Amino acid sequence: MSPETMTLVAEPAIRAALLEDMPFGDASCDAVALRPRRARVLLIAKGDGVICGLDVFERAFRLLDPTARLVAEVGEGDDVAAGQTLGAVEGDVRALLSAERVALNLLQRMSGIATHTRAMVRLLEGTGIRLVDTRKTTPGLRVFEKEAVRVGGAGNHRFCLSDGVMLKDNHLDAAGGIAAGVAAARERAPFVRKVEVEVETLGQVAEAVEAGADIVMLDNMGHDAMAAAVALIDGRAEVEVSGNVDETRVAELADLGVDYVSSGALTHSSPILDLSLKHLEYLD
Amino acid sequence: MSPETMTLVAEPAIRAALLEDMPFGDASCDAVALRPRRARVLLIAKGDGVICGLDVFERAFRLLDPTARLVAEVGEGDDVAAGQTLGAVEGDVRALLSAERVALNLLQRMSGIATHTRAMVRLLEGTGIRLVDTRKTTPGLRVFEKEAVRVGGAGNHRFCLSDGVMLKDNHLDAAGGIAAGVAAARERAPFVRKVEVEVETLGQVAEAVEAGADIVMLDNMGHDAMAAAVALIDGRAEVEVSGNVDETRVAELADLGVDYVSSGALTHSSPILDLSLKHLEYLD
Amino acid sequence: MSPETMTLVAEPAIRAALLEDMPFGDASCDAVALRPRRARVLLIAKGDGVICGLDVFERAFRLLDPTARLVAEVGEGDDVAAGQTLGAVEGDVRALLSAERVALNLLQRMSGIATHTRAMVRLLEGTGIRLVDTRKTTPGLRVFEKEAVRVGGAGNHRFCLSDGVMLKDNHLDAAGGIAAGVAAARERAPFVRKVEVEVETLGQVAEAVEAGADIVMLDNMGHDAMAAAVALIDGRAEVEVSGNVDETRVAELADLGVDYVSSGALTHSSPILDLSLKHLEYLD
Amino acid sequence: MSPETMTLVAEPAIRAALLEDMPFGDASCDAVALRPRRARVLLIAKGDGVICGLDVFERAFRLLDPTARLVAEVGEGDDVAAGQTLGAVEGDVRALLSAERVALNLLQRMSGIATHTRAMVRLLEGTGIRLVDTRKTTPGLRVFEKEAVRVGGAGNHRFCLSDGVMLKDNHLDAAGGIAAGVAAARERAPFVRKVEVEVETLGQVAEAVEAGADIVMLDNMGHDAMAAAVALIDGRAEVEVSGNVDETRVAELADLGVDYVSSGALTHSSPILDLSLKHLEYLD
Amino acid sequence: MSPETMTLVAEPAIRAALLEDMPFGDASCDAVALRPRRARVLLIAKGDGVICGLDVFERAFRLLDPTARLVAEVGEGDDVAAGQTLGAVEGDVRALLSAERVALNLLQRMSGIATHTRAMVRLLEGTGIRLVDTRKTTPGLRVFEKEAVRVGGAGNHRFCLSDGVMLKDNHLDAAGGIAAGVAAARERAPFVRKVEVEVETLGQVAEAVEAGADIVMLDNMGHDAMAAAVALIDGRAEVEVSGNVDETRVAELADLGVDYVSSGALTHSSPILDLSLKHLEYLD
Amino acid sequence: MSPETMTLVAEPAIRAALLEDMPFGDASCDAVALRPRRARVLLIAKGDGVICGLDVFERAFRLLDPTARLVAEVGEGDDVAAGQTLGAVEGDVRALLSAERVALNLLQRMSGIATHTRAMVRLLEGTGIRLVDTRKTTPGLRVFEKEAVRVGGAGNHRFCLSDGVMLKDNHLDAAGGIAAGVAAARERAPFVRKVEVEVETLGQVAEAVEAGADIVMLDNMGHDAMAAAVALIDGRAEVEVSGNVDETRVAELADLGVDYVSSGALTHSSPILDLSLKHLEYLD
Repeated sequence: MSPETMTLVAEPAIRAALLEDMPFGDASCDAVALRPRRARVLLIAKGDGVICGLDVFERAFRLLDPTARLVAEVGEGDDVAAGQTLGAVEGDVRALLSAERVALNLLQRMSGIATHTRAMVRLLEGTGIRLVDTRKTTPGLRVFEKEAVRVGGAGNHRFCLSDGVMLKDNHLDAAGGIAAGVAAARERAPFVRKVEVEVETLGQVAEAVEAGADIVMLDNMGHDAMAAAVALIDGRAEVEVSGNVDETRVAELADLGVDYVSSGALTHSSPILDLSLKHLEYLD
Repeated sequence: MSPETMTLVAEPAIRAALLEDMPFGDASCDAVALRPRRARVLLIAKGDGVICGLDVFERAFRLLDPTARLVAEVGEGDDVAAGQTLGAVEGDVRALLSAERVALNLLQRMSGIATHTRAMVRLLEGTGIRLVDTRKTTPGLRVFEKEAVRVGGAGNHRFCLSDGVMLKDNHLDAAGGIAAGVAAARERAPFVRKVEVEVETLGQVAEAVEAGADIVMLDNMGHDAMAAAVALIDGRAEVEVSGNVDETRVAELADLGVDYVSSGALTHSSPILDLSLKHLEYLD
Repeated sequence: MSPETMTLVAEPAIRAALLEDMPFGDASCDAVALRPRRARVLLIAKGDGVICGLDVFERAFRLLDPTARLVAEVGEGDDVAAGQTLGAVEGDVRALLSAERVALNLLQRMSGIATHTRAMVRLLEGTGIRLVDTRKTTPGLRVFEKEAVRVGGAGNHRFCLSDGVMLKDNHLDAAGGIAAGVAAARERAPFVRKVEVEVETLGQVAEAVEAGADIVMLDNMGHDAMAAAVALIDGRAEVEVSGNVDETRVAELADLGVDYVSSGALTHSSPILDLSLKHLEYLD
Repeated sequence: MSPETMTLVAEPAIRAALLEDMPFGDASCDAVALRPRRARVLLIAKGDGVICGLDVFERAFRLLDPTARLVAEVGEGDDVAAGQTLGAVEGDVRALLSAERVALNLLQRMSGIATHTRAMVRLLEGTGIRLVDTRKTTPGLRVFEKEAVRVGGAGNHRFCLSDGVMLKDNHLDAAGGIAAGVAAARERAPFVRKVEVEVETLGQVAEAVEAGADIVMLDNMGHDAMAAAVALIDGRAEVEVSGNVDETRVAELADLGVDYVSSGALTHSSPILDLSLKHLEYLD
Repeated sequence: MSPETMTLVAEPAIRAALLEDMPFGDASCDAVALRPRRARVLLIAKGDGVICGLDVFERAFRLLDPTARLVAEVGEGDDVAAGQTLGAVEGDVRALLSAERVALNLLQRMSGIATHTRAMVRLLEGTGIRLVDTRKTTPGLRVFEKEAVRVGGAGNHRFCLSDGVMLKDNHLDAAGGIAAGVAAARERAPFVRKVEVEVETLGQVAEAVEAGADIVMLDNMGHDAMAAAVALIDGRAEVEVSGNVDETRVAELADLGVDYVSSGALTHSSPILDLSLKHLEYLD
Repeated sequence: MSPETMTLVAEPAIRAALLEDMPFGDASCDAVALRPRRARVLLIAKGDGVICGLDVFERAFRLLDPTARLVAEVGEGDDVAAGQTLGAVEGDVRALLSAERVALNLLQRMSGIATHTRAMVRLLEGTGIRLVDTRKTTPGLRVFEKEAVRVGGAGNHRFCLSDGVMLKDNHLDAAGGIAAGVAAARERAPFVRKVEVEVETLGQVAEAVEAGADIVMLDNMGHDAMAAAVALIDGRAEVEVSGNVDETRVAELADLGVDYVSSGALTHSSPILDLSLKHLEYLD
């Protein structure tokens, strides 16, 4: 994760997660009056996948003990295997125990998304189609999940409603049609943004391209319609299709020549990568 | 969701999610200068499952337009079917478009958890075992996800590190053993909390029960060891086992007489229930 | 201002401004124990200009008295003249007195920017060049100031570092040159964003266009160099020049055929439009 | 800026400004995957003026890179000249690029106010009149702007509505007149505050002095009326007049013997001092 | 409490207190699935004292149920007697139960301070000495406690370190003595603030008055020294003494002619006024 | 205080307290332009008691000067005597002066509670009854006050409404009686929590025990009724009584065999322990 995003966005979210888990401290550590003592615990993969979020994971511990460190044996985005030791976290034993769950919750989630994404990217290899994510992310965790998508090898669509213009039927109706809508967007939106138009028919495709849309998003169109649309667009706009990617779907899309396929499932339905912290031992 | 949790915890989280999606407004609505106008859009299920989070969903729209309302045709926790219209959201067209994604992100996630939970609860029917969740929740969304688990029919384990005492090997080592650990917890932790001890061997089971643990959590024990543990405990403590629940696992557990099975997958790996907003139309 | 930006971004900023001005209440109102009483006060222009921020102005009062209202006699963006009564604020007398300064501070600033912007836009009339703002805004007030620029008739450049890609020499050096930089941006940045390259020489202009930059920003180039650059670009990219706009500068730019001129002075150095609240009278 | 104000008030505002500019990171640095590397960039004046806010400027970089440092060649409040190198910022290249705009936005604004203030202070030299600011500051930036006024050589009026009592006609009416208003303020306001009364006529001046006002503020009175007021007050209260200070106005005030002149323009309408960061080079 | 302080300062503090008490909702109400139902509960005094904070008390309930209302039978600042019914709170039963403790915690504390203060004020009746508070307040609750002091009949000293200048020996040493310290304060502090000097000897008293201190604070001086100090000051400055007020102390101070006596005990050591909510009944 | 509570909960509260006291800096230090200089000041007890909150006290200074340190001569929870020097704070002179009041406000309050608590605990020595606190804490300071109760030697009751189930008459009525209420709590509340029932009659005692309540709280019962209740309960549930503890009351309770007595006065009405910072001297 970029250092400025870590500092400005991720760290406050990690801190809030720790507070959510400890509004009144760690009752179990308190119960046995656990004393400060330097310790180490191993990070072990319990499934196969792509590791993602190592810096986020480490930050959770460092927020409770600034001297805590992750000594990683793998790099961000590496493929890991069940049973593999990925590294060791060193720090005060209380920080290791108290931050464990929050650190793992984030690391498992990010790794799960990266794992799912990489598998989908591999399905698309050789097709010339780029996989991108959507705004179907977990509320509050968008920067973490968009990062995981990138680590998994796919690209990001817009980050939020503010930084991309995507005109759907309701916007277009309000503007008085596709031509008027695109013209309005050119007039009113920051000129550094591309204008994307979502269409459902070939007639709309033609209108969008004529209007000068930068990107045409084909929504719910069949294979033949999409083929006709791509032919009609003929390089005058980028072409995005939406929908979950699986082997069947890839076979359908591969020969179409579309530029992007976006998938919400990358962020809303990836299972986690199972990881655990084990074998805590004291260092002194 | 209880009214105090909605007001104090959920609403600020929903507001933060809206801000995450719109730090500088909705560029698409702005691009076409969408004017305020009362509209209605239908909430439609695209999969089978349990609907959960209707109040959260409605609140997202109301934060942008206090007059917005969900007119629901189903109740919280109802089973819904793909294609079913679940209700209609009425409000200003801008609020309907701008809050749509955040509202759906939360509703789909909560419904996905409730759907998964209900299926697992059904597997356990007749066994006398109660399914409970864990702290493996999405950072920042714990109140939403614990609510969804309850709507799905399972129970909640502790909410956070502050409100439950669970002594694991590191706590017990620090205290000087199980007996000392439980005694310390009785002495130091608020007396309104039960003391739970995580054990891996029958010897530890015996120690924990002797020490007066309220709950014994059997960690990674085989079927026969668990059976022996339950016999040894003999009602002197509640018994929890951990692990994902599937049909095979249920068959193993069913005859053991354990009280609780906890499952992290309920909250960390449930796929969403697919839902959409369609057919927006103006009301004036 | 769009309703979602008002609710999510502007209102918290207005509330913070009120708190900045009243960490312990309004000592003068307290000193005379001013009692709640409905009153009205007139908003009067003390200079000529463009009024902007009427909704922001009203919101300041409503945060202290939800029943307060601005009854405006002018519309957002109207030209107003010194001495003109622009409307009346009605509400509890304490809210009128306590929020007056914060409300005016925001309204005067937004109106000052809109006034300055409109004058600059008029200088550019007929040239085909669009005036846009920059990120040289007041920290914390970006949404207010970008809104004022739009009301004044100019366009917005990117809103922040996150939502526009502008490659300067340091970025390009790090990437290994212009071609590599643009290619990297195509690969890594969200595809919905245009890629802008800042150049200083004709050689760089050529490189940028070849590399497929969407926008070329001519930095500190003389008139003839700019003319050559525009000819070289020949419509293959949009062309932006930067710099304060005055009559001399407009004459220089008018015949060049550039698309955009950006000006930081719109937001960092516009004098306020002088406005005041006068003639408070009680309504009951 | 005092260390406690920097820590408690200014730093959170600077952090918020950085977040405003990077809700999702620095897209340009991300686009070229800029790697951490120590660099230095020069701070250069592009206009003549008073430099102010060097600690604030440095803090912006340090929030992103705690090792970043400003090696200044000038001191806070020094006069600087166009073209002069004021110092160098050293730190990670990403921090230098990502925080540049926010750091300059604050430094330019504070320096602009200090520059304007010093010029006005010079006009008043030898008159015995002290220039002071007002509450017409930028919402959210009051501590920065009041600091700049002090660095420019003028004094601060009250910081906020809570910490100064200024009774205007509406307060006085509510209290039942000037005598009653001052008496009420003596009774109810913290006794460590002076009581200031705003007056428009000589009759009110007399009443205010009789009532024991600590400060009399002459509002919109002509030269002769002010002279009569000062004579009437005769040292029994401090005398403040309000209004923008220019050469003509100073000539009018100089012989009157008033104590203070307050000017809102210092904070609401000072143009920035133009400054830039140039010549970035790597240090390793 | 003034409406602007309630809205900007008190309400967020009350909301935070509710969240502190309910990070995950009200477990007892949840346990029995308490349904929304309009109810009323009586507010009853269990001790004699001064009631203070009725608006704060009501606000706690209204934050959970905006329709909740306190129907009070007493007014703010009234003397109340043990056993007296002070009013009734009406609202949703869950809000009544869930906010009860926070509402009472604030009301009892404010009433305790007002009760203690009024008793001390009565001891000083006829002496011409005004009782004032200090900054020895509960962190986070200053506006509540300073309000209670006023309701109890005493005055407020400065609200915080920012709004009053009190020069103690360390400040004076740093400035180079009392004369230099007062001169520096006149030069640098906002002119609307009085300058107070804390002194321990008659020599310092003389210096402070000569230097033009507005207020002289006699610290730890005996009766005769104070008498000499008052004589020496002779009306040229206000005189404050510090220390807890009891009957003995009042007798000592009464004949001295000092203006103010400040007491930290008003806010740091007042016992609460015991109050309870009883006899909840449903209204429908 | 546990390190995670200090970091996540206490430090933000201390920071907020400092900001409450210095929204615009320390006017007195500013007035004399106090320069950074290393100094030391002694912490001296002015009364007898139990010292508590030394880490909190130190943190207040460290938030303003990260190099500040408390060199303590006593340990947390030690008995201290009037006149005793407890340690020295070293740090920048401005931090020492500016944070003094907030640091002392917290230390005095925590020490006052610990002092009061230890005295009450001593009264109960030999009775087998454990003293516990309540939720009658100062809003915003619960973690500080519950810590002070523990340092004083008593135990904590539930921390908040979320983490303990205590069924009172209104909950029981809503559930349909005691048996139904306890059953509902077993069904719906997290199983790791004990269920406590508040009763007023022997009949209710019997019902509660039959229903399986974990804790029975005897509310307002006379000595004989309590004796009968304890006999009736006969070890099947823990027994709590509520009420302020004094010598008379202890004599009444001592022979009853109850387990816990809870006292709100520990946190709502303990006078502070008087402490002061004296003898500031420079270290260089």
